[in-house]
Amino acid sequence: MIRFSVFYPAAEGATFDHDYYRNKHVPLCVKTWGLDGAEIDKGVDGPYVAAVHFKFESLEALEAARGSAGMADILADIPNYTSIPPILQTSELVD
Amino acid sequence: MIRFSVFYPAAEGATFDHDYYRNKHVPLCVKTWGLDGAEIDKGVDGPYVAAVHFKFESLEALEAARGSAGMADILADIPNYTSIPPILQTSELVD
Repeated sequence: MIRFSVFYPAAEGATFDHDYYRNKHVPLCVKTWGLDGAEIDKGVDGPYVAAVHFKFESLEALEAARGSAGMADILADIPNYTSIPPILQTSELVD
Repeated sequence: MIRFSVFYPAAEGATFDHDYYRNKHVPLCVKTWGLDGAEIDKGVDGPYVAAVHFKFESLEALEAARGSAGMADILADIPNYTSIPPILQTSELVD
């Protein structure tokens, strides 16, 4: 299994709308990519104000999702909830 | 629920023993803190070579774990698998 994580680092003056992220943006990703769900983090302490973790069956499935037609809508939606450039991480889930 | 994540950023010359981490260090944390398990990430692409995610019932439970007597053994074990100073993140899991 592959974990695709997106992190939003805290920055001076940065904004992040947690409600929009939870109710609109992440559901859009889940629907576009045909996933069962995602895990959303709201930062309490540490470098990130928010994060999300998606699980994919394989790297190929992740690549297909990131290359899908709906990706343009996902990217265009980012300014609706944050001014923070996201950091992307792809990892294998270790058993 | 609280997620406590530990990230190991890639760095020039840094070492990370994924087998030791999976088989010795994370199990030590899980046992010391009385958890059911943890999710381990092996980096494929992005800033981190490895990460782990622990879930706690509350911030108080996390604080108790981090203040427990076994913490010294956990910290002392870090040089056995990596030269990378870890980055710590505490988050609320959003429903």
